[in-house]
Amino acid sequence: MKLAVDAMGGDFAPQSVVEGVERARNDDNTIQFTLYGDEKRIREFLNDDTNIAIVHTDEEIDGNDEPVKAIRSKKNASMVLAAQSVKDGENDAIFSCGNTGALLAAGLFVIGRIKGISRPGLMATLPVMSNDGTVNLLDAGANAESKPEHLHQYAVLGNYYAKNVRHIEKPKIGLLNNGSEPHKGNKVTQEAYQLLLNDPEINFVGNIESNDLLSGKADIIVSDGFTGNAVLKSVEGTALGMFSLLKNAIMSGGLRAKIGALLLKPSLKQLKNKMDSPKYGGAVLLGVKAPVVKAHGSSKAESIYYTIKQTNDMVNANMVPNIVDYFEKETDKTQN
Amino acid sequence: MKLAVDAMGGDFAPQSVVEGVERARNDDNTIQFTLYGDEKRIREFLNDDTNIAIVHTDEEIDGNDEPVKAIRSKKNASMVLAAQSVKDGENDAIFSCGNTGALLAAGLFVIGRIKGISRPGLMATLPVMSNDGTVNLLDAGANAESKPEHLHQYAVLGNYYAKNVRHIEKPKIGLLNNGSEPHKGNKVTQEAYQLLLNDPEINFVGNIESNDLLSGKADIIVSDGFTGNAVLKSVEGTALGMFSLLKNAIMSGGLRAKIGALLLKPSLKQLKNKMDSPKYGGAVLLGVKAPVVKAHGSSKAESIYYTIKQTNDMVNANMVPNIVDYFEKETDKTQN
Repeated sequence: MKLAVDAMGGDFAPQSVVEGVERARNDDNTIQFTLYGDEKRIREFLNDDTNIAIVHTDEEIDGNDEPVKAIRSKKNASMVLAAQSVKDGENDAIFSCGNTGALLAAGLFVIGRIKGISRPGLMATLPVMSNDGTVNLLDAGANAESKPEHLHQYAVLGNYYAKNVRHIEKPKIGLLNNGSEPHKGNKVTQEAYQLLLNDPEINFVGNIESNDLLSGKADIIVSDGFTGNAVLKSVEGTALGMFSLLKNAIMSGGLRAKIGALLLKPSLKQLKNKMDSPKYGGAVLLGVKAPVVKAHGSSKAESIYYTIKQTNDMVNANMVPNIVDYFEKETDKTQN
Repeated sequence: MKLAVDAMGGDFAPQSVVEGVERARNDDNTIQFTLYGDEKRIREFLNDDTNIAIVHTDEEIDGNDEPVKAIRSKKNASMVLAAQSVKDGENDAIFSCGNTGALLAAGLFVIGRIKGISRPGLMATLPVMSNDGTVNLLDAGANAESKPEHLHQYAVLGNYYAKNVRHIEKPKIGLLNNGSEPHKGNKVTQEAYQLLLNDPEINFVGNIESNDLLSGKADIIVSDGFTGNAVLKSVEGTALGMFSLLKNAIMSGGLRAKIGALLLKPSLKQLKNKMDSPKYGGAVLLGVKAPVVKAHGSSKAESIYYTIKQTNDMVNANMVPNIVDYFEKETDKTQN
């Protein structure tokens, strides 16, 4: 894989980005990295530039930039240059920890949609509570409005990801809804239900309520982007809030609680790691002409390393070309 | 208050219902209870029938009944008789732990909407993580589709609840959205934002993302019912999942973890109580002509007791008459 890396995105850039990249490079010498960003600052943290090229730029997109405007006006920003290199065929995929909206805009407007896909969707990875598995949720927020056919396309995209990258033979696809019965939902989910049910290539397992989001009933859960974003953030908020409550309860619980916490440390760490493992990788914009991968703004080297591995898996599994083929055939069917 | 109680709804009915009712009666002799249900089974658990009347019926609505159909066909079900008594002015409010959909249908079709309100909304109470407060979310799922004006009405309804029942002078009203900036959202939230902003009677604090649902930024958060239902269930699912993960981590952590858990028991109990306190009361259907209050199906006597207190507070605070007045004036304004 040839990977375009926005070295300047994220809270700990470029240090954590460089460290994650070096770890991935040391692991797999088939990956060619190009880091876009401030060369001097990148070299401060770079030990060895084997397989790592640097394209210098002073411009950056930050968290406060208005996404679409930033992509159009900051032509030399590290993220835009990285996306342009993918568009030009110099690189196979783009990785960034920067402004999510701007990265989505770069994916849509610089790299571009796959023909036949009306709305690319952002896919997040979440833990399954009852086993070691994970569940993918899409659209996790790329689109504020969704039609039933978009939800069906998310299912097709997620199906390719689960088959090609997660190596699940018959991925279970669920529909996020407000009840488990087939007739439940709003107009969008009711119609999407029928589209999913009638697609023989999809192993549709029915409606999933959001209290079952993490229960492992499905490998891929499709949702409109507004609701997907809302449930993703409420899972995050609840988990963080509970950790912080527990910490306060321990702090105010005297010596007894502190000793208890010390003894329970490995169990608590296990729980924390389950909820927020660096191994889950990043969020992926599916439906564009190359993998566009976003790691959390607060990512440290370890999550960056795993997110690069995830990106490498997508490229090596030919996921995007497979998706392109599928939608070309679909378009042909419709035209004939 | 004269309270109509569906004695047969919920997993532990009628026992827990009777116990909760007796506790509330012992606490406040101004409440007159009428229990609808199987008299013989109710009397098995009833110690003293002071202020408690029983209207016997053999018919019940269960969790598998299709809500609207059940309300229309099971005319003698405990829930329907209880709702009818409120409609007929014999009682001031209805309480049930039974089938949520059926209770909503009973509220809408038996008790009826307040004039001027197009869509009554279901209001849930959730904990605030950082202090002892709570936050109300509505619509938590009474309606699968919502228009901007419905969200505005939820804000008006929530505002009355917070002022009259929670005694908050200027309740902070937030809008559940996919970003904090004013322009964020889908068409519904973007338009609702403007309606809330332009209502001088509402202390609108702007958009709330669902990771801030429990952070105390607002006293009342309004949402379309589909998303509100989804975030409510994802908070519940995440909290339950984390408790169960922690339990497993302790169980598999050997003696060390077990001793740690024993020492930490009060802190863990504090956390559990925070996430699911019986004191939070029940979900309330706001916008109908009387308080329609639903406690969780798994409620024990204690939550039933607190939910009855909450209902009593609504009745004594004249919440519904205040709402009726407001919407009558609004209707007059529109007509003049």
